[in-house]
Amino acid sequence: MAKETIFFKNPPKIITTATLAGNKEKQGPISEFIDEFMEDDKFGEKTFEKGETKMLSHVIGKVIENSGLSLGDIDALIAGDLLNQIISSSFAARNYSFPYIGVYSACSTMSESMLVGALLTSEKYMDNIICATGSHFSTAERQFRYPLELGCTRPPQSQWTVTGAGACLISNREFAQIEFPKIVAGTFGKVIDYGVTDVNNMGAAMAPACADTIVTHLKNTGKSETDYNLIVTGDLGVLGSRIVKDLVWEKGYDINAIHVDCGEMIFNIAEEEYQGGSGAGCSAVVFNSFFYKKLLEKKYNKILFLATGALLSSVSSAQGESVPCISHAVELEI
Amino acid sequence: MAKETIFFKNPPKIITTATLAGNKEKQGPISEFIDEFMEDDKFGEKTFEKGETKMLSHVIGKVIENSGLSLGDIDALIAGDLLNQIISSSFAARNYSFPYIGVYSACSTMSESMLVGALLTSEKYMDNIICATGSHFSTAERQFRYPLELGCTRPPQSQWTVTGAGACLISNREFAQIEFPKIVAGTFGKVIDYGVTDVNNMGAAMAPACADTIVTHLKNTGKSETDYNLIVTGDLGVLGSRIVKDLVWEKGYDINAIHVDCGEMIFNIAEEEYQGGSGAGCSAVVFNSFFYKKLLEKKYNKILFLATGALLSSVSSAQGESVPCISHAVELEI
Repeated sequence: MAKETIFFKNPPKIITTATLAGNKEKQGPISEFIDEFMEDDKFGEKTFEKGETKMLSHVIGKVIENSGLSLGDIDALIAGDLLNQIISSSFAARNYSFPYIGVYSACSTMSESMLVGALLTSEKYMDNIICATGSHFSTAERQFRYPLELGCTRPPQSQWTVTGAGACLISNREFAQIEFPKIVAGTFGKVIDYGVTDVNNMGAAMAPACADTIVTHLKNTGKSETDYNLIVTGDLGVLGSRIVKDLVWEKGYDINAIHVDCGEMIFNIAEEEYQGGSGAGCSAVVFNSFFYKKLLEKKYNKILFLATGALLSSVSSAQGESVPCISHAVELEI
Repeated sequence: MAKETIFFKNPPKIITTATLAGNKEKQGPISEFIDEFMEDDKFGEKTFEKGETKMLSHVIGKVIENSGLSLGDIDALIAGDLLNQIISSSFAARNYSFPYIGVYSACSTMSESMLVGALLTSEKYMDNIICATGSHFSTAERQFRYPLELGCTRPPQSQWTVTGAGACLISNREFAQIEFPKIVAGTFGKVIDYGVTDVNNMGAAMAPACADTIVTHLKNTGKSETDYNLIVTGDLGVLGSRIVKDLVWEKGYDINAIHVDCGEMIFNIAEEEYQGGSGAGCSAVVFNSFFYKKLLEKKYNKILFLATGALLSSVSSAQGESVPCISHAVELEI
């Protein structure tokens, strides 16, 4: 039988995180947990893209600072983002002198990078690894949809790309005094495509991939949904979250009481946000701020974190393709 | 000290490969080692992008067929490519029901995927993994440079993107009768940028990153350059290959007699190819055809394989950025 789920032999720890977000995110319900906010949407740079690079570079720097480690202690950076050729990550990595492992699974990049980081540290091939990702409303909007200047009307099934970046430091060091959340297991997702062609309806497109990974992970670990305090999805939004609960329920699991979605948490969903937040930065910011802190406080002891990604490009959509999706699962415990 | 180089505890084997290329590659010096060629540049599809997806999907299918394994034995696909949001890989992965790990380091994707694959199989977290990448002249040209219909003149420092795809199957299974090349060690590269802004001069941009990884790998393994039969780089081309030899020589290593470049090998460099081949498919095709077969025959016993990647996008170049580059090294032995 194929080995879809990984059980880390020496579960590595997340010893610190760093988060940065924009002004809109500052108005949201979980803003008190986010470390820093930008005054300026371009973060002092000339373009939104350069601003996004600086955001990533900033949280990478912060996570090193928070950890008390020196630059020379960092073995690698694992990062990716939504921009073509993941330039935000690659250009951010240029500012640092440690190895760089570029990954991409759209908005599921945070959980993918955490699994690769856990792989490297669990077996002590490396000791300290930074995982980072982010997104920016203005870069995503003009790359995937329309020029910002057009001021296009957004349909009600749409989501609002989070302007934010998050990073965490995964380590296999031993600590006598402090307990940290550990990455104990994970499941790499499959690419699932139910034929959604509406590029504004990412929640509906991503829900089947997310449901598949949840069910696969529960089956392979022999766990019940009630073994987790929470099952946290990345950016399914309001509609996508309803669909994932239904799809998982059809397979015999009831996650209604324990499912939360980062996309539903980051904004006060009032008007233009419609289905909530999206983007690689959505789960990166919410996981590395709110959930990491709640795990540290032991408010939660066990969560399953599934960032969710839509693997389209503007070219694939223009050529009439539907939207294949993926979701990677990370099991955390303290 | 940072752990930049990985020594696999249970070196996994490459048990089979598959390669596919276009008509221009068929005229090249190593064509007899390439498994299959396409008659039609779109591989029967309506667009070049869909053709590229089909090429990747095809070599993934072939490598499974060659291995004698069933679909259910494959634990994961690790893939990436040059198209925005690595759509060729993601859409190819949609055709298969195993987990998918998307990676990106431009034309260094082949060696990055092999290192991640070796990590997963060395510790038996997974048993059989497919690594794949590819590129297409026509999709790369219109995405990174100019519309094909313009018929732009190419400058003499330019390279020709390889139309081709390659895949290999990494496994930790034991074989009593047959010996296979093993992945014994590897070094993830750093992002290095010497300030080259000419997007037609990828060889010069990539050479410093490649030289850095070669020197780092030799230092960390305590090996001398003469411990290898060959040091094989990805797609530096004629000019880049000269530069890498100079840069490595400045650090006290002489690789003049043992360095070869896949970009210099794949085409008869006559006129329009100028510096030779490039693209993620260049090293993917040449490594998985010529070098894999020469390793199997024990013509070579030990090679260091470094695919080389330029991490630019059309947006970063339009915004005046230079070209950050990376190269990941894989040490193979039989």
